[in-house]
Amino acid sequence: MSSDERKEAADLLHSASIHLLRRVAKVDAGAMAISPARASALSVLVFGGARSLKELAQAERVTPATMSRLVSAMESEGLVRRYPDVNDARAIRLEATAKARRILEHGRAQRLDLLEQLLEEATETEVRAVRTAAKVVERALASG
Amino acid sequence: MSSDERKEAADLLHSASIHLLRRVAKVDAGAMAISPARASALSVLVFGGARSLKELAQAERVTPATMSRLVSAMESEGLVRRYPDVNDARAIRLEATAKARRILEHGRAQRLDLLEQLLEEATETEVRAVRTAAKVVERALASG
Repeated sequence: MSSDERKEAADLLHSASIHLLRRVAKVDAGAMAISPARASALSVLVFGGARSLKELAQAERVTPATMSRLVSAMESEGLVRRYPDVNDARAIRLEATAKARRILEHGRAQRLDLLEQLLEEATETEVRAVRTAAKVVERALASG
Repeated sequence: MSSDERKEAADLLHSASIHLLRRVAKVDAGAMAISPARASALSVLVFGGARSLKELAQAERVTPATMSRLVSAMESEGLVRRYPDVNDARAIRLEATAKARRILEHGRAQRLDLLEQLLEEATETEVRAVRTAAKVVERALASG
C-alpha cells in the first residue's frame, strides 16, 4: 500500500470524525440540556473518577479560575458535589452527582440512536467496513 | 442485516470516534500551544467566517460573558481582531488573525501525521475499510 493511500485514508478519517462529532454535539445540545463545557468536565468526573479542582482544570486544559466558575455553577445546578479528601482534610475533591450521571447516560443513548439511524441506509458490506474501521482505530490507539 | 449488528457498529463507531478525538486533542495540546477553548472558537471564525461575539458564544454554547473573557484574552494574544460591521457601524465583528490560521493549520497537519502513523500498522484491507467507513459516515451525515 502506498503512503499516498494511507495519507488519503487518514485525511478521510480525520474529516469524518470531525463531522461526526459536530453532528453528535448537536444531539447532545438537545438531549442533555447542559453546555459542552459541563458535559466535558462531568465526563472526566464520571468516567475518570473524583479529583481536585486543579486536576479537573488540567484535564480540561482551562485555568483553575475558569474551572472554579464552572464548578460553582454546576454545584448550584446539582451536578457536582465537593467533599474533603480522606487523606487530607484541607483538600477538597469533586465528584459528579447521580443527576449528572443520568444526564450523561441519556446523552450517550441519544448519540447511539443517531449513529444507528445514520447506518440504516448503509449496505451490509458498508456496516462491516465501519465495524472493521472502528476496530482498526481502537487497536492502533491502544498500541500507538 | 439485523438491527443488533447495526447497533453494535454504531457503538463501536461511537467509542472509536471518542477515543480518536481524545488522542487527537493530546496532539493538539502539544502542537498548537493554545487551549481547546481557543482552538474551538478559532475554528468557528477560520472555517465558518467572521461573526459577532454573541454569534460566536452561541456557536460555542457558552454565555456571552464567558466568550467575552475568552475573546479579550485571544485579542491580547494576537489571535482575534475586532472590526466594525460594514452594515452597522455600532456592531462589532470578530475575525481570526493570520497567526490564528497558521496555528490551526499546523495543528491539522500534526493530527494528519498522527492518523497516518496510526494506520501504518494496518493491512491494505483494513485501510480500505477505513476509507469506506469514512465515506459511509460522510454520506450519511450529508443526507441525514
